[in-house]
Amino acid sequence: MAADEAGARYPVEALRDFTYRVFVRAGMPEADARIETDSLIEANLRGVDTHGITRMLVIYVQRLRCGAVNPQPQPRIVSETPSTALIDGDNGMGAVVANWAMRQCIRKAREAGSAWVGVRNSNHFGTCAFWAMQAAAQDMVGFATTNGPSNMAPWGGVTPYMSTNPLAFAVPASGGRTVVVDMATSVAAKGKIILAAKKGLKLPEGWAMDKRGRPTTDPNEAIEGLVMPLGGHKGYALSLMIDIICGILTGADFGPHIGKLYGDFDRSQNLGHLFSAIDIARWVPVEELKARVGQMWQEVTSVELAEGSTRIYIPGEIETEETARRLEQGIPIPPAVVKEFADLGAELGVPFPG
Amino acid sequence: MAADEAGARYPVEALRDFTYRVFVRAGMPEADARIETDSLIEANLRGVDTHGITRMLVIYVQRLRCGAVNPQPQPRIVSETPSTALIDGDNGMGAVVANWAMRQCIRKAREAGSAWVGVRNSNHFGTCAFWAMQAAAQDMVGFATTNGPSNMAPWGGVTPYMSTNPLAFAVPASGGRTVVVDMATSVAAKGKIILAAKKGLKLPEGWAMDKRGRPTTDPNEAIEGLVMPLGGHKGYALSLMIDIICGILTGADFGPHIGKLYGDFDRSQNLGHLFSAIDIARWVPVEELKARVGQMWQEVTSVELAEGSTRIYIPGEIETEETARRLEQGIPIPPAVVKEFADLGAELGVPFPG
Repeated sequence: MAADEAGARYPVEALRDFTYRVFVRAGMPEADARIETDSLIEANLRGVDTHGITRMLVIYVQRLRCGAVNPQPQPRIVSETPSTALIDGDNGMGAVVANWAMRQCIRKAREAGSAWVGVRNSNHFGTCAFWAMQAAAQDMVGFATTNGPSNMAPWGGVTPYMSTNPLAFAVPASGGRTVVVDMATSVAAKGKIILAAKKGLKLPEGWAMDKRGRPTTDPNEAIEGLVMPLGGHKGYALSLMIDIICGILTGADFGPHIGKLYGDFDRSQNLGHLFSAIDIARWVPVEELKARVGQMWQEVTSVELAEGSTRIYIPGEIETEETARRLEQGIPIPPAVVKEFADLGAELGVPFPG
Repeated sequence: MAADEAGARYPVEALRDFTYRVFVRAGMPEADARIETDSLIEANLRGVDTHGITRMLVIYVQRLRCGAVNPQPQPRIVSETPSTALIDGDNGMGAVVANWAMRQCIRKAREAGSAWVGVRNSNHFGTCAFWAMQAAAQDMVGFATTNGPSNMAPWGGVTPYMSTNPLAFAVPASGGRTVVVDMATSVAAKGKIILAAKKGLKLPEGWAMDKRGRPTTDPNEAIEGLVMPLGGHKGYALSLMIDIICGILTGADFGPHIGKLYGDFDRSQNLGHLFSAIDIARWVPVEELKARVGQMWQEVTSVELAEGSTRIYIPGEIETEETARRLEQGIPIPPAVVKEFADLGAELGVPFPG
């Protein structure tokens, strides 16, 4: 991606401050605005611009301001056992609800050894990685998954039913590092297609179908159409299962019954999330686990390279390196998004920096 | 696959009896032989011949008889909390150990609401689906995963490191049905490649590389070489994470340190498994969950079909229909495998039926 397509770079703290102030102006309590901001900025830092302010800030604020999302939610525990909690998110911002839920999950895992926490009545929560990594930071194995609005067809069909339901695992490693797997169950995340459309780029082959089920490399046709499930039937199966355990198991909505992020401004999305944490120290000494993950890291990145390959990456390593780069050089914001931010800031009395 | 390639069909109960008697002759206690047999026969019934007696019986018995696997293990709990247990499998047959572990997992989930159970010092346990389905049969969400001997390279490399580490989820649905996702993290399971070699068939494009990392459709080159991870970097990432949570988190071996199933006859495989169960009734009424999964089932299988597609399947549905067919028509055994069974039976004094 050329620098001019990526856009000018803005200092991280200036963007963080802008985002925080926008959320406060949109009616969120300061502490919640801080959480929501950190979740989005962290996504941008890791290079996951599809889940950062780049793509999410404007739509999030739009949903807050029209009342589709509750700016001041009171999440509550619907039912709990020693190692589980089911939470009603009170239609709050997804990251606010997820943060509350993941704290319950970590607390219960510390007490019972492990925990599963389900969430109903929530909204788009950013990246799964952000939540799984909170457990890893507490020396636990972290797991996070969520459902979302339909944009992928059952394998063999052309009607959207499931979302590209993602999942993440995170585990700590030696040297303060973390192994993080965060993946959509599609070949590529819908957000990457939307970003390609904004940037006027073509899609790689095999990413998407148009609305009649024909392959396309035009991101606008793909937005109207369907993303392809990862590995065909396997991605379909995994996505459907995630819809069951996030939507049906928690009593949230599922499939096409979920409210759309872009549209359905008169209702909550009623997404479901599912989190888990396992307290490592109950099974093996934490330092031993970290050292063995470090051994694996060293071994994996030392294998013989395939032709044309220059390096092996551990899952999450690209994002960690990108974070270091962006902390120093700033976060690139595409020109079209700068314009959106300037307009949004003007409307809310929060000048966009620069 | 033509009928003659698939082989003649044998009645299920005759194969079950043969398998059971072979395991008893190989030194297993009767109850354990029953569990091991049921796990393999169930895989064949579901059409998963890669994990049935078709591919596993001879190698399992070989490992038992040479002492690589302990025929009379005493699995024990190394440590436990209200919602976790770490189990040492005493180098027993994988299905015997997994059965013991999954029972602990279900018991703990019933008491605490959910559980995670890890296993070290175990061996190949058959299909993940079989274990996840045990939880589903108890009105729980079931999860099972395992690591295995290296046969897949890190993305960008050509040296095998991880196995095609599989995972399974199972959830009950209305009408006594179950949604079951069971997938290797490769494009195709190694077992399918080995079976193709036995049958003299070519592989589809994109399944495998030869040992230098070049694409191949020759199953024998692929056996010496590498299977391709599902969706490239995503399958690699998921497989590596499964290796961490099954191998390192449990204190078992990981990556190339795991004993090979075919080879390494002087040592245990020291695989690790990880199981989880969530007690559905703690969050939503079981009948309500089953009804909503049933609603999803109906909706998903009614979507508009893609060109060339004749039907949408729910994950696990093909296997359920195959089970009904094979219960009636018998399990096909390829001629080469019939010969192996006859030889094995003759050696152990257990005549192969027919």
